[in-house]
Amino acid sequence: MTTPDFGNVQAIDVLNLKSLEKRAEALIGRGEFGYITEGSDDGYTKWRNTNAFKDVHMLPRVLQDVAEPDQSTTLLGEKLKSPLMTAPIAGNALAHPSGEIGLAKGAKEAGIMMAQSTFASKTIAETAAVSAGAPYLFQLYMPKDWGYCQYLLDEARQANALAIVLTADSTLGGYRELDVINRYHLKGKIANLAGYNTGENGAGAGSLFKESMQKLNLELIDKLAAYSHLPIIIKGIQTPADADAAIKAGAAGIYVSNHGGRQLDGAPGSIECLPAIAKVVAHRVPIIFDGGVQRGTHVLKALALGADLVGVGRPFSYGLALGGWKGVKAVADHLKMEIFIAMQLTGCQTIDAVKQMHCTTSFEI
Amino acid sequence: MTTPDFGNVQAIDVLNLKSLEKRAEALIGRGEFGYITEGSDDGYTKWRNTNAFKDVHMLPRVLQDVAEPDQSTTLLGEKLKSPLMTAPIAGNALAHPSGEIGLAKGAKEAGIMMAQSTFASKTIAETAAVSAGAPYLFQLYMPKDWGYCQYLLDEARQANALAIVLTADSTLGGYRELDVINRYHLKGKIANLAGYNTGENGAGAGSLFKESMQKLNLELIDKLAAYSHLPIIIKGIQTPADADAAIKAGAAGIYVSNHGGRQLDGAPGSIECLPAIAKVVAHRVPIIFDGGVQRGTHVLKALALGADLVGVGRPFSYGLALGGWKGVKAVADHLKMEIFIAMQLTGCQTIDAVKQMHCTTSFEI
Amino acid sequence: MTTPDFGNVQAIDVLNLKSLEKRAEALIGRGEFGYITEGSDDGYTKWRNTNAFKDVHMLPRVLQDVAEPDQSTTLLGEKLKSPLMTAPIAGNALAHPSGEIGLAKGAKEAGIMMAQSTFASKTIAETAAVSAGAPYLFQLYMPKDWGYCQYLLDEARQANALAIVLTADSTLGGYRELDVINRYHLKGKIANLAGYNTGENGAGAGSLFKESMQKLNLELIDKLAAYSHLPIIIKGIQTPADADAAIKAGAAGIYVSNHGGRQLDGAPGSIECLPAIAKVVAHRVPIIFDGGVQRGTHVLKALALGADLVGVGRPFSYGLALGGWKGVKAVADHLKMEIFIAMQLTGCQTIDAVKQMHCTTSFEI
Amino acid sequence: MTTPDFGNVQAIDVLNLKSLEKRAEALIGRGEFGYITEGSDDGYTKWRNTNAFKDVHMLPRVLQDVAEPDQSTTLLGEKLKSPLMTAPIAGNALAHPSGEIGLAKGAKEAGIMMAQSTFASKTIAETAAVSAGAPYLFQLYMPKDWGYCQYLLDEARQANALAIVLTADSTLGGYRELDVINRYHLKGKIANLAGYNTGENGAGAGSLFKESMQKLNLELIDKLAAYSHLPIIIKGIQTPADADAAIKAGAAGIYVSNHGGRQLDGAPGSIECLPAIAKVVAHRVPIIFDGGVQRGTHVLKALALGADLVGVGRPFSYGLALGGWKGVKAVADHLKMEIFIAMQLTGCQTIDAVKQMHCTTSFEI
Repeated sequence: MTTPDFGNVQAIDVLNLKSLEKRAEALIGRGEFGYITEGSDDGYTKWRNTNAFKDVHMLPRVLQDVAEPDQSTTLLGEKLKSPLMTAPIAGNALAHPSGEIGLAKGAKEAGIMMAQSTFASKTIAETAAVSAGAPYLFQLYMPKDWGYCQYLLDEARQANALAIVLTADSTLGGYRELDVINRYHLKGKIANLAGYNTGENGAGAGSLFKESMQKLNLELIDKLAAYSHLPIIIKGIQTPADADAAIKAGAAGIYVSNHGGRQLDGAPGSIECLPAIAKVVAHRVPIIFDGGVQRGTHVLKALALGADLVGVGRPFSYGLALGGWKGVKAVADHLKMEIFIAMQLTGCQTIDAVKQMHCTTSFEI
Repeated sequence: MTTPDFGNVQAIDVLNLKSLEKRAEALIGRGEFGYITEGSDDGYTKWRNTNAFKDVHMLPRVLQDVAEPDQSTTLLGEKLKSPLMTAPIAGNALAHPSGEIGLAKGAKEAGIMMAQSTFASKTIAETAAVSAGAPYLFQLYMPKDWGYCQYLLDEARQANALAIVLTADSTLGGYRELDVINRYHLKGKIANLAGYNTGENGAGAGSLFKESMQKLNLELIDKLAAYSHLPIIIKGIQTPADADAAIKAGAAGIYVSNHGGRQLDGAPGSIECLPAIAKVVAHRVPIIFDGGVQRGTHVLKALALGADLVGVGRPFSYGLALGGWKGVKAVADHLKMEIFIAMQLTGCQTIDAVKQMHCTTSFEI
Repeated sequence: MTTPDFGNVQAIDVLNLKSLEKRAEALIGRGEFGYITEGSDDGYTKWRNTNAFKDVHMLPRVLQDVAEPDQSTTLLGEKLKSPLMTAPIAGNALAHPSGEIGLAKGAKEAGIMMAQSTFASKTIAETAAVSAGAPYLFQLYMPKDWGYCQYLLDEARQANALAIVLTADSTLGGYRELDVINRYHLKGKIANLAGYNTGENGAGAGSLFKESMQKLNLELIDKLAAYSHLPIIIKGIQTPADADAAIKAGAAGIYVSNHGGRQLDGAPGSIECLPAIAKVVAHRVPIIFDGGVQRGTHVLKALALGADLVGVGRPFSYGLALGGWKGVKAVADHLKMEIFIAMQLTGCQTIDAVKQMHCTTSFEI
Repeated sequence: MTTPDFGNVQAIDVLNLKSLEKRAEALIGRGEFGYITEGSDDGYTKWRNTNAFKDVHMLPRVLQDVAEPDQSTTLLGEKLKSPLMTAPIAGNALAHPSGEIGLAKGAKEAGIMMAQSTFASKTIAETAAVSAGAPYLFQLYMPKDWGYCQYLLDEARQANALAIVLTADSTLGGYRELDVINRYHLKGKIANLAGYNTGENGAGAGSLFKESMQKLNLELIDKLAAYSHLPIIIKGIQTPADADAAIKAGAAGIYVSNHGGRQLDGAPGSIECLPAIAKVVAHRVPIIFDGGVQRGTHVLKALALGADLVGVGRPFSYGLALGGWKGVKAVADHLKMEIFIAMQLTGCQTIDAVKQMHCTTSFEI
């Protein structure tokens, strides 16, 4: 086995997550940057994802005997050092040559969960070799080809994935105007598909959705679980009804997300969907959340409104672009620092205490 | 019969509907463009029409077994390929010499409903010759002269209009400041009036409201239906009380509209009026809706809140200005593409499924 | 008797009321303009006065058999051609040399109610000579000196005032920063005080509040009514409790106003106060309203929420500055035109119908 | 005893409190100014503190027989001339060499309460020598070293402190980006610590939180009260639950504050927290409030929503920077003038009347 090539790596300063975007824009190609940063249509849902956090007000407690708050938690029986996760993003090689192996190394060094996309720039095996025991989820875009699906599930299991995350919100790509303006077509191979089609040319990423199944339904959950013997988490849930139906159909977890505002525009901010879903889920299965997280306080708000694990997407890609795996780690470390301060200042010694925190919201929950 | 003259025609790119306005402004005369684009008074209701859609949040469903969503629907027993309609606009020759015959051709090619105004630049007969069997509505501004009204109804029936749309919100023109600033008086003949007054000079469009009746009332519905033997749809309904009264007086359809914010400023966004009206209508008759639609997701939101057919106005005029009938078709095709994506991403296989979709709104409904 | 000197008079174009402010600013001295235009403190309440109208949505009715709406109405048994009134403003000579006699002439020619301030630049008698039978209110700033008060009441009665408007919201001037920045002290004599103090120098307007009584109470109503034999209207009411108390203490009318946002900043927009007050007043006495009115639709909204007469302040001063009495008339005529259109488009034949119109508001009422 | 050195002192004009910030910025070093002005994270809570006052609408009463309103009040049995207080701020020597002795002199001359921070630039004794009988509170950052704590309490008692204010919201510093950008570390000695560690070098302010205890709890209240024999007020309360718990644990007062938005970002505006806390406190103990106060009307709103004493922070530092103690006095005098006007215009003769005033809020209370 060859030593992984992490490319050009350097420590980076992180003032805050938001500031990384402009710095990364200067490094990444215009088309690639557009693809990473954009939301669909008018970008309303992407905008709302972050801005809806403003409408969640934490009511901090004082005199709670808190010092050195503990950020550890658990998911599906796995002990985790942090409630943070790198949300799955396609083609991280657009940001940095090391792609997902840089992401995996950064996540591992920072002690946070990694989630890898089917459409990664690196194969599951390559990433797994770096992760090597660190907590790991595999995000499945359901292929039309069942053989290819079996191959992906086998690889994920081989990589000790904690669970399979079935993407339910992207049976087709959202309408994204920056790609049209930039005449940008996603470049680079789909490493996993190339791995499956040994000897063939890898399909271009432009054909992602040609490869993917549109007619997803609840029966898939059993089918994937039966073959993989892994827990199945459904990603892209935005309604209590879907959360309930998925759990009844065998889902081991609910992943509340609107795909970073890249799919359906005109959906609410992701955090607005969380409380009603958490109420219906009622702790039967864990809830993963992503959507617009930029601050440690956003992580606390998501946990307080029902999440068990909180994904962060684009900021990790920007960190990767700026410093390779050390950039990824720097982003995670910055967030952990903000979470630490916020836990101390809200009077929360543990993540369980955060989950009990009272918040007020201007949207109905 | 002569071949219709569609004028200068070209295919156009459509990034989104909003972007067409600036492009059209560069082509159309300042006074004409002002007349097309403006709202009345402070333009609040026009602004609100589009912006109120932001306050409608769709809650998308997943794992719904959807692929290749079907956009077909029905209205008054007529099978339609699309829930889209070209909302009636006066004097389309302001935008492009082909006027309504360009609009009709574009609508027909795109497979969407066409609605023609009494104040069109082309006669009903000229337009009908192009539409030739494509679905078609005639929008009536009630004339003071019953003979002229009979002439219009006869022509509409001759043109196989599916229904007569009686305009109830414009017994007088709104106060529109751009026309004052530009010292603009609507130019060009009213083709239908010229057709009626054979041998006389056509009245200038400035006299539109001199020709029109102010004292409209519910009894007109019966009178128009009795003469035309066509269904009568009332346009400009903004309250449940008016919707109910119109249906009880014989209306065959309700058209929720505030005339693109060109009449009464200070009325709510049109989409805000829709849910309460839909509740009172309770499927007794179909509901047509227009007001600020710029996106495929706006069409879905209108359908989900109670509409059966969704009109789009100014964007078609801009498309017509930019490319003649091909511009009209390009606008329709772009919207259909956006609707297709939005149906897939909300888990809706059919328009009926869209009508069942759950939305949350920040305004009361 | 000498012929009144109306100064330089000219017809003016009015695009809308808002646009007059900038035009007047170019004519009036900086200090004078600042004094007229400013609100107190942060100008929040002044801003809110106009902007709160956006949160009132009219629900227009159609097919209501309306043509040529009738704007006439009544107040305290007096038949009025219009629900409009020139709200009382101090020192109109700041805007134009003709001051209140210009205002009175413009109001009379336009057929609207005139209200004259105690602190007018012209005496009651001078103004009355111009008004000569046109409907007229006298606004009293309660003097400390009862003899001066008796003089004012005598003059008002002599002038055939329909009622006395007792100012209750200004026992002291609000904090207005433009005057501090401009080092502006209100110039010019108080004509009425000069009239009373014959032979003495008129007091400067800077001493307005030195002349005025602070300790106002409900007993004043009886005292003023008993002496003047005129109806007493209380101006500056912002709560239902005060409205009720004033009526029980003998008030013949309630004037809802926050003094154009020039007194207490941090109060709600005036229109926000109106509905709750109207509910308590319950038609026992008429309600006059002012605060931020810029459009004919604002007048309709105020009437629909409970007002019987609607005052407009600064715009008449700007009209006066721009064209003397003809400017005042032009402002009134423009508003009447906007009211006419709005009545037609809301389906209201009469002012009584406007009062029945249904509005929705985003603020609680 | 030496004469206190008040440094460069001059009378200043105060247009309004907000305008002082820019003027002070020009005088104070960039790092120091950044430290004083900043909020934590995105500055949302700091922004909200002031802006939430806009969502509190006072409903003024008229005809209430008010003249020359009386601003005096009481706290913990002490008669006060004003409901104003200089909120405790660390290291006032950053703004002006006279530091807290300038602040104390200004507060005394203006007749308002002074609160001094543990982290002051001057010792308790130095400040007390200036205050000399004027009302005074000592704000305690609980040290890890009980001996040091005893020293501070002894000094506070010696200084005739009315009460000890225990800071509960700052067991750790918020994340403040301006300090990172400016590479600023709080300079200067902690005078009180230097006083305790006689013969040692004073600790740098950068070690503030190293000196402070993190694990604060309710038992501290009894411990501090038993040793000091002074009332203990808990500062940084933002929830009714904490207020109730603190009172039951012996607190003699509740101080509603979010530390000027410098600690936890994402908390509500301080004024939003006040009404629910006041309801639970139910007059068992007095309530001190601070957070974003810029206007006399803000003081009235805080009193009306439940406060008994209202702190103002940064504006006094800016006043101090601009004019030494005379700047502090000028800020207080300006606020008292605004309070005077606002009391007159709301119909409130006394502070008790202000506390009965009805306000409406757009946030839930």
